[in-house]
Amino acid sequence: MIDIKRLWSDIEAVAAIGRRPEGGVSRGAFSPQEQQARTYLVERMRECGLEVVTDAAGNIFGRLDGEGVGEGAAVIAGSHIDSVEGGGDYDGVLGVFGALECLRTLRDRKARLRRPVEVAAFADEEERFYGFLGSYAFTGRLGYSEIAEVTDADGVRLVDAMQALGLDASAIAGARRPAEEIHAFVELHIEQGPILDREGLSIGVVDRVKGNYRFNLRVEGRSDHAGAPPEGRCDAFMLLHRLIARQLSRQAESGDPELSCTIGRVAVEPNIETVQPGVAECSFDLRSSVPEVLRDAQAELERAAEELAEEHGAAIRISSILREEPLQFDAAVVAAIDAAAGELGYARRFIASGAGHDAQVIGRYVPAAMIFVSSVDGRSHCPEELTRREDIERGVNVLYRTLVALAG
Amino acid sequence: MIDIKRLWSDIEAVAAIGRRPEGGVSRGAFSPQEQQARTYLVERMRECGLEVVTDAAGNIFGRLDGEGVGEGAAVIAGSHIDSVEGGGDYDGVLGVFGALECLRTLRDRKARLRRPVEVAAFADEEERFYGFLGSYAFTGRLGYSEIAEVTDADGVRLVDAMQALGLDASAIAGARRPAEEIHAFVELHIEQGPILDREGLSIGVVDRVKGNYRFNLRVEGRSDHAGAPPEGRCDAFMLLHRLIARQLSRQAESGDPELSCTIGRVAVEPNIETVQPGVAECSFDLRSSVPEVLRDAQAELERAAEELAEEHGAAIRISSILREEPLQFDAAVVAAIDAAAGELGYARRFIASGAGHDAQVIGRYVPAAMIFVSSVDGRSHCPEELTRREDIERGVNVLYRTLVALAG
Repeated sequence: MIDIKRLWSDIEAVAAIGRRPEGGVSRGAFSPQEQQARTYLVERMRECGLEVVTDAAGNIFGRLDGEGVGEGAAVIAGSHIDSVEGGGDYDGVLGVFGALECLRTLRDRKARLRRPVEVAAFADEEERFYGFLGSYAFTGRLGYSEIAEVTDADGVRLVDAMQALGLDASAIAGARRPAEEIHAFVELHIEQGPILDREGLSIGVVDRVKGNYRFNLRVEGRSDHAGAPPEGRCDAFMLLHRLIARQLSRQAESGDPELSCTIGRVAVEPNIETVQPGVAECSFDLRSSVPEVLRDAQAELERAAEELAEEHGAAIRISSILREEPLQFDAAVVAAIDAAAGELGYARRFIASGAGHDAQVIGRYVPAAMIFVSSVDGRSHCPEELTRREDIERGVNVLYRTLVALAG
Repeated sequence: MIDIKRLWSDIEAVAAIGRRPEGGVSRGAFSPQEQQARTYLVERMRECGLEVVTDAAGNIFGRLDGEGVGEGAAVIAGSHIDSVEGGGDYDGVLGVFGALECLRTLRDRKARLRRPVEVAAFADEEERFYGFLGSYAFTGRLGYSEIAEVTDADGVRLVDAMQALGLDASAIAGARRPAEEIHAFVELHIEQGPILDREGLSIGVVDRVKGNYRFNLRVEGRSDHAGAPPEGRCDAFMLLHRLIARQLSRQAESGDPELSCTIGRVAVEPNIETVQPGVAECSFDLRSSVPEVLRDAQAELERAAEELAEEHGAAIRISSILREEPLQFDAAVVAAIDAAAGELGYARRFIASGAGHDAQVIGRYVPAAMIFVSSVDGRSHCPEELTRREDIERGVNVLYRTLVALAG
């Protein structure tokens, strides 16, 4: 079993890096704060005797190799150490330092392994510059042309931020690791949802990642005085409201209780109390594990938009921002996780991930799966994010046994 | 009958003051542009031999008095010459220069009148600083304490803007005109709605002004990841959406086809695609001529908010921003307008005003009513605002005959 005290001191040490006075941590990718966390990670990896490599994307790997360890494709476990602005202490960090703790335990026990085992920290998972930068590059899906002009919200160029850490962005394609060198990838992560907490379970065996279709809905109507009579209006916000209402009521009939819809961004023009908006716009984020549900929702959205636009003489534009299909994780890796939790006697359930994770990028390339641990009230990406110490211990123990099963 | 050519040259001259290169006019109250329009108006009034007075609120009056004109309470006709940013050529201007044209016609004919007749231009109708400043002060509803700290959207103080025009804001209470000095007030205005245009009518006899209840709706839910499962969310925007949907469906049953609802201002926090909003806020503007309809709508809104808040553990706050009760205009003034249009043989209808006008403030103080002329497509407060020259001529003729009936 792993040493929770040793792991806990790592989690606390990293949580202190980028800590904001008002609570939460800010360790955007390639920031000075994240650089400090990178240094801390590399030092711990070296203490453990791992062979440390930082690739061209800024991904950090620590490899347990050598005496008593077989050759061939590696089993990799990890996550990320960057954070959103004002994020929590566990998101990403748990998966990296939990994996490191597993490797420390393997080394302490001088475990004999058929395969090398690695801990990985992937760069810019949280999209300061380019979401999943590290895992995209690792799986060969990213070249320099795609990132040459990328900036963060403040206009800082990714290329410059990488250079400040000694990384040459123009070499990013070189971060690709051939698939045949990877036997499996396992990511331990907090749930970022309340299901496990609500059901009183510590462990979720993540067998699938929801697909994520994201759209921008833009209605161009006719701005007019709020005193105009109700008939004959072409109020862009009212049309957007009706489009959303129609869509939500249709989606309720989709038969998929896991289908989620989030409208996170909303804007109207001219945004004045006494003026009917001429333009109304919002984001529309749909997530489901069932490919047909997402496709049907998109088709219905497009149909409803067309009908409303024609009915009211408005222009309604639906643009796709993101189209990630659902992913079924590798059955053998899922089974290894489930068996590990079973052997430890932990109550568990199969669960879908609604959030995006490095494992969903890597899982399209090599066999992968995830372990979730319970988040109190399902909170994440906020200072209140909390996973109980006992759940962390259980999660890392499951990861440990899974790695032993896959590499041992 | 009035001289449309003479009037047209005034309208064109004023439309050139504050004209923006991109179209529309900007003559905010007490701006240098509005000052130019004031000067133009005063010059035309003097040419007509009117006795010109600017009161302590910056309202301008031109009085036809003296030989052949009786004593006692005056009949006043007018509107305003300030504009919104990028407004149209007719809103307000028509009512002032139309009235001036009527007085010119009376003077040309050396009409014998039982009562003095005045043309009035009321200050800051369009709320650069304080909506209806002029008509509030004129009817004794405004003291210095209410305006001492008022600024425009750019932080310019009303007191300073008035001083630049030689007006002493601290004396504003002195703008009150005793009600017994006013026999009636008539305002000619463009419709700011499409009803007359749609029905092919030139003239609307405005017998009532809709009441206007305006609220701020604020939902405080719980911000969470867009990847969280659908159950157990407390997404502030989704709750706001449901509140609006519930309210709109109940209002549809109000039995008042004139009830209008405008949501002109919308905001969510943190306003990020991948995050469920923790806070969602909007304005909610309701207009109806029926007092019970407005009161019931408010009660239903409050009930729905309470139910939703309890159901989802959110906080929903409804704050009142404005509460103007509906106003029935004076029956005798309405009848005089209707009779004038009838004598001229113009097709007309009774109509409610949905927009706010000086006449609705003044109509709570002395007998008043309004004449609407058709707006092409109902557009207003925009460069596209247009009233046909023939409709303007008809509207001013109705105003002329109405003044003759009330003062002659």
